[in-house]
Amino acid sequence: VCQTFPTPADRDTLMILEQFQFTGGNLLTTEKELQVNYILKKIKGKEIMEGMKTGKFAPAMHFFRAKELIEQSPVFNIIQMMPKGAGLHLHEYALLSVDWLVKNATYLPNCYICFTPVGGVRFHYFHRMQQRKMVNCSEWVLLEQYRRQIQNVTEFDNSLMRNLTLITENPEEAYQSQNIIWQRFSDAFAAASSLISYAPVFKTYFYEALKEFYHDNVQYIEIRALLLPVYELDGTLQNKTWSIMAYHEVARQFKDDHPDFMGTKVIFSVHRKSNNTEMKTAIYEAMELYNKFPETMAGFDMVGHEDAGHPLWYFRNELSIPAKLGVKLPYFFHAGETDWEGVHVDENILDALLLNTSRIGHGYSINKHLVAKQLSQKLDVALEVCPISNQVLMLVSNLQNHPAAALMAEGHPMVISADDPAVFGARGLSYDFYEAFMGIGGLKAELTTLRQLALNSINYSAMSAQMKVEAIKLWQKKWDQFLDAVVHMFNSDEL
Amino acid sequence: VCQTFPTPADRDTLMILEQFQFTGGNLLTTEKELQVNYILKKIKGKEIMEGMKTGKFAPAMHFFRAKELIEQSPVFNIIQMMPKGAGLHLHEYALLSVDWLVKNATYLPNCYICFTPVGGVRFHYFHRMQQRKMVNCSEWVLLEQYRRQIQNVTEFDNSLMRNLTLITENPEEAYQSQNIIWQRFSDAFAAASSLISYAPVFKTYFYEALKEFYHDNVQYIEIRALLLPVYELDGTLQNKTWSIMAYHEVARQFKDDHPDFMGTKVIFSVHRKSNNTEMKTAIYEAMELYNKFPETMAGFDMVGHEDAGHPLWYFRNELSIPAKLGVKLPYFFHAGETDWEGVHVDENILDALLLNTSRIGHGYSINKHLVAKQLSQKLDVALEVCPISNQVLMLVSNLQNHPAAALMAEGHPMVISADDPAVFGARGLSYDFYEAFMGIGGLKAELTTLRQLALNSINYSAMSAQMKVEAIKLWQKKWDQFLDAVVHMFNSDEL
Ligand SMILES: [Zn+2]
Ligand SMILES: [Zn+2]
Repeated sequence: VCQTFPTPADRDTLMILEQFQFTGGNLLTTEKELQVNYILKKIKGKEIMEGMKTGKFAPAMHFFRAKELIEQSPVFNIIQMMPKGAGLHLHEYALLSVDWLVKNATYLPNCYICFTPVGGVRFHYFHRMQQRKMVNCSEWVLLEQYRRQIQNVTEFDNSLMRNLTLITENPEEAYQSQNIIWQRFSDAFAAASSLISYAPVFKTYFYEALKEFYHDNVQYIEIRALLLPVYELDGTLQNKTWSIMAYHEVARQFKDDHPDFMGTKVIFSVHRKSNNTEMKTAIYEAMELYNKFPETMAGFDMVGHEDAGHPLWYFRNELSIPAKLGVKLPYFFHAGETDWEGVHVDENILDALLLNTSRIGHGYSINKHLVAKQLSQKLDVALEVCPISNQVLMLVSNLQNHPAAALMAEGHPMVISADDPAVFGARGLSYDFYEAFMGIGGLKAELTTLRQLALNSINYSAMSAQMKVEAIKLWQKKWDQFLDAVVHMFNSDEL
Repeated sequence: VCQTFPTPADRDTLMILEQFQFTGGNLLTTEKELQVNYILKKIKGKEIMEGMKTGKFAPAMHFFRAKELIEQSPVFNIIQMMPKGAGLHLHEYALLSVDWLVKNATYLPNCYICFTPVGGVRFHYFHRMQQRKMVNCSEWVLLEQYRRQIQNVTEFDNSLMRNLTLITENPEEAYQSQNIIWQRFSDAFAAASSLISYAPVFKTYFYEALKEFYHDNVQYIEIRALLLPVYELDGTLQNKTWSIMAYHEVARQFKDDHPDFMGTKVIFSVHRKSNNTEMKTAIYEAMELYNKFPETMAGFDMVGHEDAGHPLWYFRNELSIPAKLGVKLPYFFHAGETDWEGVHVDENILDALLLNTSRIGHGYSINKHLVAKQLSQKLDVALEVCPISNQVLMLVSNLQNHPAAALMAEGHPMVISADDPAVFGARGLSYDFYEAFMGIGGLKAELTTLRQLALNSINYSAMSAQMKVEAIKLWQKKWDQFLDAVVHMFNSDEL
């Protein structure tokens, strides 16, 4: 029998070839990395085999139920210690655990609350007697007074935390469709934004957020920000320039206090339900801000439920303005955050690429679009993969089925991020890295995969070339310390 | 700004290129096909948009809850009418709706039942007083007598149907892990097999099964069969040869009664928990049967829960015997029916290809294996995609996330099949075609996708070249009738 195709004898070669193409599979390794990889593989293998046997495996479970299990995992422990580089897909009102908002921001003087008919809340800080009733919300109640009157303040504060997150015991029951969960999601966002938009809270919130990422061993973040008006106690509204400068100042202050942090950049974002006129205005504003604050402004994006908004192509004229004017405005479009193949919004990935996007937010549906996938690979446009977000927002239930598994197998350019960690009950990037490493990567993902993902996050960031060099240097130092710490913690003989 | 990559001006070209590579995207179309496609797209678009709006979309729901919704769909109606070609991935004890087994087989004289401690049932036909107690089952009870004693025979018969399927109101509650549902699945299989292994039932069951597929507009089927001993009332056990001949005879009889049916072939299958000695014996038996019954025997496969069984590589010596002897024995390996990337069974797809498999059963995890995927494409080894099976057996919950969506976008060789329609409460291939067309293909899948899938099923079957020519001719005739019928049914002006 004449065989012109591979035979069992070629097995090892083919398996090495497959591993070589996997994300990080072609990275060279040091002696110490081999040692840590040996430890990591042992621990990881044990955890995966256990999950396979018991049917209880965190990435296959809803994050709200998996969180506790993840926190017990030694793999998670290692990932927390690991320097993860940059968080490139994050939103300004969901950066920091909501505990801080409830336990600090809502305890500030002059904080009022009102209740919406659908069970939501909004906050506002006023000088006494200056308050104006909000549409679709109850009368304003001074929180200080309110807390004095109620029986159980702890229970009330917990209810506020629930308002600011999507966390619930039985998410499948509570959120019966993507439309429903997006409504709740927007409501949590609006509640948080009503607190964060108060000038004193705004700056402290961002400082505390940077601290949370810093403690999670993240060296730099880029945030999508609507740049909504920030208000002072006397009602004065600050403009977008003020917000950009505030982000910049807080980041500089944080870097002064923590020299081993690389800083932050802002991607100005508008809602994808905007009309063409609003979009045109936003694009001109974005060009101006980008020109005025080259250090802090990274570029432009659109946010909101993709299925329910306008497709990118709807704004093709507005989005082409910078190119036509010869003005630089990098794009970082959310695209393909959908299960609905072939519907009007489902050309967003291709259009994002045609509009010269620098990265793709999510790109969840890219596997269903061969040409877009090939373009993204060839043009080296990375996807920002946010596993927990995709699961909680009901695109996928078992993260072993996340489309990024196929992309990892192909070494497709990608970074891991957290989208809205506060709303999902996560913290920093570690939970998402864990899901990506255990669920999406499976047993094939090794230490080099983690290293590649961290290096990618710096490489695909909006940092300047010079800043990237510095960031890599900083990261490499932390990486070496991390390797030592793992070797120190885990005696490989005992495993 | 100098652009060396595509710009928005290239959009149409790229979208056409993407559509061209989609399954069926490069097929030429007749005037009538264009007309039917116009109708189909209208109806399909309406249904998808409705699902997107309401959040109630059959492929995103569990099949047990979606079934009724599917049956109301005009798209399903069209798919039922459509000649679907061949069903290439089916198992011998789960071909025919269980109603028939309960309402006919269990009402035959001499049918006894026993109850297992875990709530299962087994059946056996004995001459009076010849029965021997089964291990792990209650005493045998004559069904005729039992039914006379109980109050509600309908309720009892319904309970038998539940025993023979996995159907339940709240599957997420009832089946908490893949291991648990596989146990229940095997139990349902064992219960059905205890009825079907009775010689008179065996033949009638198969005839009725062919009828069910025929009425679902399927022209030919290949079944995986363990070829377990069939018994006569007096206890005589028939061997594998008897079973093969019985399949052959029944199919011939059916073809005599229905000349527009193409027939059937058998893929002899053993359990993947077998040991090496048993496998060796099975391979020799398979070679002998393949040699003796070239018309009916298609080849060899392994069945059972892949995660819990031996990987293919464990049997590499046994599976290499035919090639070493220069004896032909085509393989049709189940492979990659797993969520667990990188574990020991997860090299099965690559190994199936290296062992020269003719098709791949499921291949669910192939996207996670770049080399295996490329090999399967180059060697033109089709995947047998069984959407409902993958969902019910808990590999994926929302079928819009099925990995075959990416494979369709690449025009990867595939066929659609039903695996075990009886156990899942499906009938024929139409339900799986619906899920594939609506959920996996999304709006991009058009009439040519359906045509390609039907043509694939004949092309990738084990039929001889001559038989394929006949089958295509037969199918083409039915296809033309189908087109006429759709045009006749749907007045495109009214849509
Ligand atoms: Zn986002
Ligand atoms: Zn099967």
